[in-house]
Amino acid sequence: MSDDIAVRVKEALRDLSRNVEDYLASCLEGRDIPDALRRSMEYSLLAGGKRLRPCLCLAWAELCGMKASRALPFASSIECIHTYSLVHDDLPAMDDDDMRRGKPSNHKQFGEATAILAGDGLLTEAFLFMTRADAEPAHVLEAVAVMARAAGAEGMVGGQVLDMEYTGRVLAAEGNPVTLDQLRTMHAMKTGALIRASCEAGAVLACGGEDRRRRAAAYGAHLGRAFQIVDDILDEVGDEKSLGKPVGSDRDKGKTTYVSLVGLERSRELAEEATQQALQALDGFRDADKSWLAFLQDLARYVLVRAV
Amino acid sequence: MSDDIAVRVKEALRDLSRNVEDYLASCLEGRDIPDALRRSMEYSLLAGGKRLRPCLCLAWAELCGMKASRALPFASSIECIHTYSLVHDDLPAMDDDDMRRGKPSNHKQFGEATAILAGDGLLTEAFLFMTRADAEPAHVLEAVAVMARAAGAEGMVGGQVLDMEYTGRVLAAEGNPVTLDQLRTMHAMKTGALIRASCEAGAVLACGGEDRRRRAAAYGAHLGRAFQIVDDILDEVGDEKSLGKPVGSDRDKGKTTYVSLVGLERSRELAEEATQQALQALDGFRDADKSWLAFLQDLARYVLVRAV
Repeated sequence: MSDDIAVRVKEALRDLSRNVEDYLASCLEGRDIPDALRRSMEYSLLAGGKRLRPCLCLAWAELCGMKASRALPFASSIECIHTYSLVHDDLPAMDDDDMRRGKPSNHKQFGEATAILAGDGLLTEAFLFMTRADAEPAHVLEAVAVMARAAGAEGMVGGQVLDMEYTGRVLAAEGNPVTLDQLRTMHAMKTGALIRASCEAGAVLACGGEDRRRRAAAYGAHLGRAFQIVDDILDEVGDEKSLGKPVGSDRDKGKTTYVSLVGLERSRELAEEATQQALQALDGFRDADKSWLAFLQDLARYVLVRAV
Repeated sequence: MSDDIAVRVKEALRDLSRNVEDYLASCLEGRDIPDALRRSMEYSLLAGGKRLRPCLCLAWAELCGMKASRALPFASSIECIHTYSLVHDDLPAMDDDDMRRGKPSNHKQFGEATAILAGDGLLTEAFLFMTRADAEPAHVLEAVAVMARAAGAEGMVGGQVLDMEYTGRVLAAEGNPVTLDQLRTMHAMKTGALIRASCEAGAVLACGGEDRRRRAAAYGAHLGRAFQIVDDILDEVGDEKSLGKPVGSDRDKGKTTYVSLVGLERSRELAEEATQQALQALDGFRDADKSWLAFLQDLARYVLVRAV
């Protein structure tokens, strides 16, 4: 049963992300971009990954009655934002990571200056691609605002600042230990906001109405939290190969995690709760296309499967 | 006569920028932004400056028949983009500047990690503020695209990469010396694109039509070039106090400038040509509000006044 879900989700993500992959591979082509900059941007943008955020945006657009192809440039732009955040997070002044997805990180490959500028470029191009959504201009504008709020100082960028404060890497009023509330807020901003916004923007583009938009945002927020808790669990009990990094690396870095705060068993309960809340947000879509509903349900359940 | 122009332009810029200043001072207020991040963003955003780019956007919106107040959030967002570019340019991996506008640069004051994130935050918030323009959604979207193209990999970010290559700060196929064509292209991207886009976006927001939009873009491009040439001239012959940096500092850094390439006299001719071209772009606005036309004419002439 749990194997079935994993297979189904992986297949669906592969299908759904194919067009995203094509869009990303060609979006910088034929444009007047200095060669070194283009190579650095594409190096990180085309380094693989599940393209989870674009797929969420496309699935929510479809669930709310809009053809995924009309949301493709917008959905792909979210991967540009996600990629820029990884490039900047890896910088020596931030997490100082030399490796990313089995390759040298961007600044290791191209130098720090080019990496900073490649990140800046990816973030800026993202907003260009958003304007290409084939939807009502008023809805596209609203979806742009959703993304900017989620990626900005109240969202992802702010979450990275909190993370750096909590781990003592920048001066702050308070460092470790953090409370469960602080940990939740930090993750909700740093990684949750973009996942939530990916879903919400899909619903907004499709003109899903207030209720569907709220449900999309709730689904994304709970899904994002479940992902984070399961990541923390896997850092303790996962298998090094599928993890792509040493088990216990968060613990070794002295990072506060769900597991370090409330233990393994309670963390599993919290992940289960978050998954259930994500599934509940999907209630009320009985009239929607069953295959998209099933995909989003599977995706929520799949997160838990990884943690068992 | 030239004193008159200077007085008029400075007064007009002061009047026009007052609302921009207010908008920037309050745009991060009352929002859930981590304290250290907000302080770092406001430190650079509220450090003064003429707010030239927002003023150009407002003036062009008015010239094309739209009340400036309706373009205020959009115009102010351009200052967020300009500020983020200064914060990132000052970073140790880039220009490594310790001072900016008479104060420690952002990374000197808040540390490198926070400075990178403050820049990221300013760039992202800019796109949120753009969505608040009180204009036809389709025109706002088009204006957002104008800004993203100008600020991104084909514009400002790409220009900074070229600048770093030409000064040998990042590895590149070719370093110094650069040709006049290369210098023009680099400046057109690094600083010209944002000035050009400020004008063009104002015309687009006001639904100025294709001809006015083209004229706005041309005015901005020529004005930006005139500014850059005059900056290079002033670096040679200017007065240290009004310059805010030592005379000859570009020369001492081995930077290629208009003056180092073609000499003082020819540089003055090129600045004069660029100014004339900016003024020509204003032909065909005889029906427009005379005061805005006069302001944009004065501004173009004022650039030259500084170089005499």
